Amino acid sequence: MKAPLKARVTIMLKDGVLDPQGEAIRHALGGLGFQGVDAVRQGKVIELDLTSTDAVAAKAEVARMCEGLLANTVIEKYAVEIV
Amino acid sequence: MKAPLKARVTIMLKDGVLDPQGEAIRHALGGLGFQGVDAVRQGKVIELDLTSTDAVAAKAEVARMCEGLLANTVIEKYAVEIV
Repeated sequence: MKAPLKARVTIMLKDGVLDPQGEAIRHALGGLGFQGVDAVRQGKVIELDLTSTDAVAAKAEVARMCEGLLANTVIEKYAVEIV
Repeated sequence: MKAPLKARVTIMLKDGVLDPQGEAIRHALGGLGFQGVDAVRQGKVIELDLTSTDAVAAKAEVARMCEGLLANTVIEKYAVEIV
């Protein structure tokens, strides 16, 4: 029997969508004396413990979860990784 | 001249710290009919565009940013990846 799978979903704002939270982090880093940071984007990461042992089916299922709940596909892009 | 670096920081609650946001996602997925999700943990991902071209120094600098601002190391763990 194969071990259950773990999926990692990374959700970021699409390029071109303003990211005020990332901008606030960049500003705060500058205020703390950290130079050399050009741009910051913040996103979410969601780790799912799955009961499935079929990586291909699991990846498709998690993509459906992203489309249906986890990501706002109007402004966000997501990446699914089975780990 | 080497290209500027990009760092990806993943910040998750430490194991054992209650994650109500992850639990809410798990519950919502169940409500939408997605079976086979055992546990969900939610975290943050922060992508930094760096001006530095030295990967080793950049990784150490980003770790200092995590300690000083990005992560709450009492309850959160972080991982730095240079991409």
